[in-house]
Amino acid sequence: MVRYLEQVEMDTVLSLSKRRGFMFQSSDIYGGLNATWDYGPLGVELKRNVKETWWGSVVRERDDMVGLDAAILMHPRVWEVSGHVQNFADPLVECKVCHQRFRADDLEDASGCPACGGELTDPRTFNLMFKTFMGAVEDSASQVYMRPETAQGIFVNLANVLVASRRKLPFGIAQIGKAFRNEITPGNSTFRTREFEQMEIEYFVKPGTDEAHLDSWVEERFSWYVKHGIRKENLRLRRHGDDELAHYARDCYDIEYRFPWGWAELEGVANRTDYDLRSHGEASGHDLRYFDEEAKEHYYPYVIEPSGGVDRAALAFLLDAYEEEPDPSSAKGETRVVLRFHRKMAPIKASVLPLSRNEKLAPTARAIHELVRPHLATQYDDAQSIGRRYRRQDEIGTPFCVTVDFQTLEDRAVTVRDRDTMSQLRVPVADLVSILKDKLEHGW
Amino acid sequence: MVRYLEQVEMDTVLSLSKRRGFMFQSSDIYGGLNATWDYGPLGVELKRNVKETWWGSVVRERDDMVGLDAAILMHPRVWEVSGHVQNFADPLVECKVCHQRFRADDLEDASGCPACGGELTDPRTFNLMFKTFMGAVEDSASQVYMRPETAQGIFVNLANVLVASRRKLPFGIAQIGKAFRNEITPGNSTFRTREFEQMEIEYFVKPGTDEAHLDSWVEERFSWYVKHGIRKENLRLRRHGDDELAHYARDCYDIEYRFPWGWAELEGVANRTDYDLRSHGEASGHDLRYFDEEAKEHYYPYVIEPSGGVDRAALAFLLDAYEEEPDPSSAKGETRVVLRFHRKMAPIKASVLPLSRNEKLAPTARAIHELVRPHLATQYDDAQSIGRRYRRQDEIGTPFCVTVDFQTLEDRAVTVRDRDTMSQLRVPVADLVSILKDKLEHGW
Repeated sequence: MVRYLEQVEMDTVLSLSKRRGFMFQSSDIYGGLNATWDYGPLGVELKRNVKETWWGSVVRERDDMVGLDAAILMHPRVWEVSGHVQNFADPLVECKVCHQRFRADDLEDASGCPACGGELTDPRTFNLMFKTFMGAVEDSASQVYMRPETAQGIFVNLANVLVASRRKLPFGIAQIGKAFRNEITPGNSTFRTREFEQMEIEYFVKPGTDEAHLDSWVEERFSWYVKHGIRKENLRLRRHGDDELAHYARDCYDIEYRFPWGWAELEGVANRTDYDLRSHGEASGHDLRYFDEEAKEHYYPYVIEPSGGVDRAALAFLLDAYEEEPDPSSAKGETRVVLRFHRKMAPIKASVLPLSRNEKLAPTARAIHELVRPHLATQYDDAQSIGRRYRRQDEIGTPFCVTVDFQTLEDRAVTVRDRDTMSQLRVPVADLVSILKDKLEHGW
Repeated sequence: MVRYLEQVEMDTVLSLSKRRGFMFQSSDIYGGLNATWDYGPLGVELKRNVKETWWGSVVRERDDMVGLDAAILMHPRVWEVSGHVQNFADPLVECKVCHQRFRADDLEDASGCPACGGELTDPRTFNLMFKTFMGAVEDSASQVYMRPETAQGIFVNLANVLVASRRKLPFGIAQIGKAFRNEITPGNSTFRTREFEQMEIEYFVKPGTDEAHLDSWVEERFSWYVKHGIRKENLRLRRHGDDELAHYARDCYDIEYRFPWGWAELEGVANRTDYDLRSHGEASGHDLRYFDEEAKEHYYPYVIEPSGGVDRAALAFLLDAYEEEPDPSSAKGETRVVLRFHRKMAPIKASVLPLSRNEKLAPTARAIHELVRPHLATQYDDAQSIGRRYRRQDEIGTPFCVTVDFQTLEDRAVTVRDRDTMSQLRVPVADLVSILKDKLEHGW
């Protein structure tokens, strides 16, 4: 069954997201800053889970990958040599009457200003990199850029990493970090923002083997989203046309998600060839070629780049998790809202709930919470009826609720409730942590 | 016994750090960008461990804390209201002859330029915030700042977080993220840089209880460094004099580490009073006062701020871990270099080493590595003699080496070697993962 979210559902999810503390507009109390977002207590845990799961998959569990964490501010030569100063630009037109600016490629065949109908200028290029000045003097000599992609931090460190880690091709470097693009038309919540977090891999291979590696990374990265909870029917692959390839790419596949406003990119997997390494090698005077001991030759490795957006992934996991269904426990036929997060993505793994707010139950419930807390992200909730608390936990996607009742005081056992099936299981407190850990690993 | 590092040892550690892949100067191949650093494969793991351990201590294992992740770019009004536009500035003097600039407070009583002896101007204030422009037009209306502290992201989100998380005072919000300061005199490796990562807590309390909470956070944070491996004799507390308090603070303690160049701040714990919340409440028109249900009154909470540097902490953990000692296994009286990281901080937790590079051993050793790898950060190393490989693992602080020998093929057991005591234990492969996990949790 194909299922996808409508725009109206998007608004519902975003409203839940703000109310329960996933995402807030940045600087909300000052009317917000356009195109930047803050993550609340649940959002930060979701985003941490996305990053941790990705790092586990692409660094920890592979023999051919290492990590890196390069700075946002880099030497300005990097961006000249990478081609970003020259090419990382959008064509803009300006209205001669109201002076608003628009992306020329958004206007298509329109001849007048979309805002006031006024006459438009010819397109002029507008670089998307944010600029700032480093040092005590603001002049062209001190101008630096906020990186528009994390990738260059990997390319310029390749030689250092190869020496330090004594690796052979094929091998890759993974990095998570902020990047900044002064987008003219940001929008759709955290989908297109001016400040965003990337999770990027640069995978270095022998020229001639690049097409096979591209295919296998496309497959690997597509499966990763499915494995962690995105419905397969809401994902598709789209190959870039020649006219949309970035200046450094020979080939590129987008992994797209069916967002409420249409299909849009979650992650791109590009063949960057040896464009960047060759450019940096030639411009810096450092030999960035790889010495292949078996083939006894020096060459610039080709680079396959799976480049995902952490914010986009978190948004897709959130949207795809959203479900409304009739609440079987409600006599009035109420609706249950549930975020069916994959267990690894759920911000809170288990909640401890005393059956009622009672002075006999409280110390035992608190003690059980303290038992679980060092091992998992938990919540303790004793406000309102147990039914309402289950609904609250469903609404934030908590896989397991642990209920402490009066029987617990006698038999030292608690009830564990599964979010998805709502089935319940009585387990000894002594086994609780290992049972929860096991179910988080392997499912209910 | 008091032990502290000398400057010469600092150079040794930094050289090891580059060679083995902890830290590299940013944009190294272009001559480096002053005061920014990149973390290599081991450095990124060390830094991840610092952050993960901190998050575990201050968010996961406490009932009175939640997390947040606010954007680096915020509404410019935030920095006017917080006082940073006005007050976050250093006094600079310029040489009238060579035009170099210096911090006036660094020069003390000098009357001439330290570089050329020329006449100096009177001091002028120089704001430490990096500026950039957001949107298509570069004018004063589009000017934004790169945040100089993560704290403001917490203050402006307090109301949203309180509603979403239904918390009562005292409670705190924790955040990890990049901040930027255009320092005039950066230096000492990753200690004072222009781009750095903070781990900050804003802990909101009832006025009148702030002094007691300040004391308990100072104690809590000091102990955290000791608990995770910093020698107590290399740490001290220093209370700020009235003349060095930031514009928002009433009281502040620095937790200082004995760096090779002298005592310097690892983390500050400040009493920010209600300065920020009151300012934002009054300027934004949003009521940021807290309603205290028990006292039936509205008030601006006071704020205790434990603010640590991730990069400084990582540097201190690295320096403090460094040891040279006679190698007992060396007949020639060689020296063993060992990073005695706390187990939680060690970038690699266990290495799998076949006794020799041998086609009979390799498949078994590989299989054992794959068994361990999903659970821990691991390395597989089969290059050179086993003695050299032990030294390599000691030098990067790996707590446990797992040696696979010919006996393993018979008895399905391996030898686990402890980094610190160099004692060895024979364990069944079937129990290896649980034994390693247990020893990582509780020590050898």
